[in-house]
Amino acid sequence: MANPVVAEIRRGSLVESRHRGSIAVVDANGSIVLALGDIDTLVYPRSAVKAMQALVLMEAGAAERFKLSDEALALACASHGGEPGHVAVAEQMLAAAGADASALECGAHWPSHAASAQALARSGKSATALHNNCSGKHAGFICAACALGVDHRGYIDPAHPVQRAVKAVLQDLTGVAIADEHRAVDGCSVPTWAIPLQALARGFARFGSGTGMTPGRAKAAQRLRAACAAHPWHVAGTGRFCTAVMEHFGARVFVKTGAEGVFCGAIPQSGLGVAIKCDDGAARASEVTMAGVIERFVPLDDADRAALGRLQHPTLRNWNGIEVGAIAPAR
Amino acid sequence: MANPVVAEIRRGSLVESRHRGSIAVVDANGSIVLALGDIDTLVYPRSAVKAMQALVLMEAGAAERFKLSDEALALACASHGGEPGHVAVAEQMLAAAGADASALECGAHWPSHAASAQALARSGKSATALHNNCSGKHAGFICAACALGVDHRGYIDPAHPVQRAVKAVLQDLTGVAIADEHRAVDGCSVPTWAIPLQALARGFARFGSGTGMTPGRAKAAQRLRAACAAHPWHVAGTGRFCTAVMEHFGARVFVKTGAEGVFCGAIPQSGLGVAIKCDDGAARASEVTMAGVIERFVPLDDADRAALGRLQHPTLRNWNGIEVGAIAPAR
Repeated sequence: MANPVVAEIRRGSLVESRHRGSIAVVDANGSIVLALGDIDTLVYPRSAVKAMQALVLMEAGAAERFKLSDEALALACASHGGEPGHVAVAEQMLAAAGADASALECGAHWPSHAASAQALARSGKSATALHNNCSGKHAGFICAACALGVDHRGYIDPAHPVQRAVKAVLQDLTGVAIADEHRAVDGCSVPTWAIPLQALARGFARFGSGTGMTPGRAKAAQRLRAACAAHPWHVAGTGRFCTAVMEHFGARVFVKTGAEGVFCGAIPQSGLGVAIKCDDGAARASEVTMAGVIERFVPLDDADRAALGRLQHPTLRNWNGIEVGAIAPAR
Repeated sequence: MANPVVAEIRRGSLVESRHRGSIAVVDANGSIVLALGDIDTLVYPRSAVKAMQALVLMEAGAAERFKLSDEALALACASHGGEPGHVAVAEQMLAAAGADASALECGAHWPSHAASAQALARSGKSATALHNNCSGKHAGFICAACALGVDHRGYIDPAHPVQRAVKAVLQDLTGVAIADEHRAVDGCSVPTWAIPLQALARGFARFGSGTGMTPGRAKAAQRLRAACAAHPWHVAGTGRFCTAVMEHFGARVFVKTGAEGVFCGAIPQSGLGVAIKCDDGAARASEVTMAGVIERFVPLDDADRAALGRLQHPTLRNWNGIEVGAIAPAR
């Protein structure tokens, strides 16, 4: 059976496009608060679990050992736009561990932040691995390896101690024994492990509340959440949804996008975790869907509602700035 | 009822994302040869009908009067990448009509062809309306207005003689009386008229075969098809699907993409027209779906099959060039 429509693209008097998907909102014990569509579906979480992957960095003691700033911890959880400020922090992280950009194994791509890409080209330079949206996560993996006292080379390999630790963290938080055949390769070359959507949501309920985790892991999660809440620009960047949500809501809401229409989040106050997968992989749909979940599960005042309204109902404008349509969560 | 899955994104051992949509393949009389999903759905054809819009340019006598090259006629039908060769032809078209880039009312955007955008930035310049993927169509509208002896200013307005002529052509070819409330504004600011999918397919059956059109219109369509077949790079650009299809198949297949997952085409030899709409607006899905339709309805030899296989089953590679998945039409 098809998943329900979660977001619509309107143009003129008609719905031009429709996005289907599934939504799981659960508590740290796995009790389901909202289930829309197939929440048992296996989902590659992609970049949506970067904060969980960063727990390995924390638990290796890399944050203390290399005196990583909160900006650096936020960047370790980020899919950033490759803006100069993001690149600078990634470089600092690598330098702190005695490495440099040549240690990054994520591959290079141009900044997704258009103005930064244009400025980079204008300066006569080309894209490097530091501009890769995952460079903070990868710098974090390298810091983790160094803190663990293992060779960082090959840190993207599933058999490397860092990736084995990542898998263990994911299994612990989601409560799922991940089968080997559910491993695929992510855009930045690290493993991505398919996990049922509702288990991902449970993992984020734990990540957001500390419930069901060892005290050390709960403390590490708390510090990562606080770093992201304090430096949301480092988690995504200028004009980005994750940044806008956390700039407004601060520590009340943690959100993180992933490729192919995945969105995960936590509402620490109510102990809830959220996992969204748009069937077709569209970020525009997963974003307004996440905004709709926040509207429903976070207590809101008028300022919250105004901020959320802009995120939930983005206007579509054409190249002349004329309003031609809108994106909205389906009702 | 949900439309069927038309394309899948595979990663590792799983299907990561799924695209639904509808497909209509009909002949010039409107007889349905293939109907998948809801083919009565109202679809904004967006850029997929640029070749029909260009009939107005032909019928105004602009091609002869301004001695437009076949490259220019192909560019009038194009959603181009803003590569230097595209920009040059758009400038030539405008100059031929005694106008320049300031006459374009499409708005500016950076070239979608990444290397051209980087080169433009590197040269210290910025994007102009000439780089807009629709600049050839707009230059054609301006040529049409000049050939009709009317002021080209305001040519994007639904009440302008050029847009009224476009609407008349669309109604004639598709056989649909288009209601005023089915008008919306396209990305380049001209009207886009919602038309039932199967009527769009019928329009392309007529456009491709000449059947059901006046002799003059049939001749104009034939010249536009020949121009696109001879200069497919001008219809899209480097690395683009429309270009690859017509580079290989020449006059045997006419295809044109539109925003939001629309794809239209014609198979002149068999008198068939094709219209595809992916529900969620994804181009990657509409492309492999079109490749699947070509495989089914065009007689193929081994070289055709090899060329089509690459278009039908694109490999997904990550930033390190590692093969991580594939896109494929659903079976």
